[in-house]
Amino acid sequence: MNELQTMKVTENDIAKMAGVSQTTVSRVLNDHPSVKDSTRQKVLSAIKEIGFTPDPIARSMVTNRTGTLGLIVGDISNPFYAETAKIIIGSARNKGYDVILSDTDHDSDSLQKEIRMLLNRRVDGIMIASVNRWDTYVSELYQSGFPVILFNRTTDDPNMHSVILDNEQGARLAVSHLVKLGHKRISFISGPSKYSTFYQRLEGYKLALKQYHLPYEEEMVFNENLTYKDIEKFVKSIFSIHDPPTSFFASSDHMAFFVMDAVARMGLKVPEEISIIGFDDIDISSNPYINLTTISQQKKKMAISALDILLSLIENEDRLKKPVQVRIVPELMIRGTTSMKQMISLCK
Amino acid sequence: MNELQTMKVTENDIAKMAGVSQTTVSRVLNDHPSVKDSTRQKVLSAIKEIGFTPDPIARSMVTNRTGTLGLIVGDISNPFYAETAKIIIGSARNKGYDVILSDTDHDSDSLQKEIRMLLNRRVDGIMIASVNRWDTYVSELYQSGFPVILFNRTTDDPNMHSVILDNEQGARLAVSHLVKLGHKRISFISGPSKYSTFYQRLEGYKLALKQYHLPYEEEMVFNENLTYKDIEKFVKSIFSIHDPPTSFFASSDHMAFFVMDAVARMGLKVPEEISIIGFDDIDISSNPYINLTTISQQKKKMAISALDILLSLIENEDRLKKPVQVRIVPELMIRGTTSMKQMISLCK
Repeated sequence: MNELQTMKVTENDIAKMAGVSQTTVSRVLNDHPSVKDSTRQKVLSAIKEIGFTPDPIARSMVTNRTGTLGLIVGDISNPFYAETAKIIIGSARNKGYDVILSDTDHDSDSLQKEIRMLLNRRVDGIMIASVNRWDTYVSELYQSGFPVILFNRTTDDPNMHSVILDNEQGARLAVSHLVKLGHKRISFISGPSKYSTFYQRLEGYKLALKQYHLPYEEEMVFNENLTYKDIEKFVKSIFSIHDPPTSFFASSDHMAFFVMDAVARMGLKVPEEISIIGFDDIDISSNPYINLTTISQQKKKMAISALDILLSLIENEDRLKKPVQVRIVPELMIRGTTSMKQMISLCK
Repeated sequence: MNELQTMKVTENDIAKMAGVSQTTVSRVLNDHPSVKDSTRQKVLSAIKEIGFTPDPIARSMVTNRTGTLGLIVGDISNPFYAETAKIIIGSARNKGYDVILSDTDHDSDSLQKEIRMLLNRRVDGIMIASVNRWDTYVSELYQSGFPVILFNRTTDDPNMHSVILDNEQGARLAVSHLVKLGHKRISFISGPSKYSTFYQRLEGYKLALKQYHLPYEEEMVFNENLTYKDIEKFVKSIFSIHDPPTSFFASSDHMAFFVMDAVARMGLKVPEEISIIGFDDIDISSNPYINLTTISQQKKKMAISALDILLSLIENEDRLKKPVQVRIVPELMIRGTTSMKQMISLCK
């Protein structure tokens, strides 16, 4: 046989190292009952010693697994994904898994392609961050029993393993913070509703307004495009309406930075005249120069929880038959870009 | 034999699909001359069709390669590495390679461990971003003929493949920009010299001062710690010296943000009273709210060049016997944090 020239660890190598016959090694690998415990230990420690510990090849011989995970992210240059990937890679390594990273640029065709590649590469499980709501073809993977978990965003299929933030709650925290500071006119800047994150944050925004008996007005909401130009245009135009906003709730920290600039260009001061709150709490947002009030995604909790579930799916094949769905509780990070509603709105 | 239970593609599978004997498949895989061209084509297309295209396992049977690359970064949550990794992963994918990502937290022990893991995983080549100058044990990899390239930072061993920025030139561009704006007192904020990047930027800073007949003064240089607190302390203290700086050159954009904040806390305005220039040009620096003047690392050029060399090392084994060392030319990005030297210094 010439099965895989690159994979040079054979039963013979192990047999030589353990000082037993190849047949014995075969028996150990196949869990044959006729092998003495002391012999089995000798073989297993030979397997462990070949190469380095943990040896993915020796292990794959024993467990029928490759010790690799696929992590598919929408955009690794987005700090939220980079900071999350760091946690997942480090934690997976500690548990003996390597991570193959894929980047889809948030494109559904790429996502399908990357999934095929990773299956082809025989990864033990896949974490997908992030799908859009109509990417329901990933359900096939779940139905096939292959270990797969959605991270940060979900599809419209309720039967998938997933770890997401409680986005509705996050939006309510943000609106509630602004209302308590006296703001009644809160503009919402968000992304397209095809992403569950933005969809749920919009729902949370609406619910919170209702809770405080404030009207929901479509013209106060921007959720079309994410470019700076579009956001700047919207911010400019919103100040010409009858009763303009005194505060902005942005659905990501990056969007909040755009709003901060657009507002500054109009000669308005943050937070003295306009309050701004973001969503994500990427590292740079706590940099004192930026000091953005925001909703923390609890990245570490989210990442560790998703990895734990994925490894459970891989390692305990008969457990977790039902979809496991975790919602992490967000946290309000009060910093320097929000304050009590000031004069500007009183003068109107 | 029971070599690798996870790897189920056998010569038999290919033989069946191609409608030839297993012996013929063996001959094709071993490049035996007695196989007819039409038969060889049948076998190769059967290999191609097994699973999906490109099939890393079928390919590894033909090329003795796994189609995986190791990318070791110092810190994926640092935007410079995240943005670079995105380019490398996307470009590698287009060329049929998957990337296993490792994160060392800039720790030398972790680096050694990650290298062993990746070799153990049988990656075809490794890109290391970033070493410190004394991590010379990576030279052994180079000497063994294994495809390895250093990215962004080099060790003190001159015999390694590497792609770095011309850091000296970058520092000279920065100082020169400030001098042309009238600044003669330029404080330099950098990191420890055990990293080639910071070492070379300090050299460039010194050379540029010399070129403009400005004195080099140690008290104007901070290159100990990278924490915000230390930088803030330094910035505060530097304004109490006899002839304080009117400008800061920071060795990374992140450090520049720290300086921007420390300066703002002292009641000084950027750029009206103090000019600040960074180094990196991470995405956020061009965000209009930050709008940092900086030195661009030309991430895309650096990443593509390093990947091309690594793939050459992998695919053309007899080429590139001598170390290939590329230095990418940096570019000055003039934005809103630098301006002509103003009143503040004239009043002293």
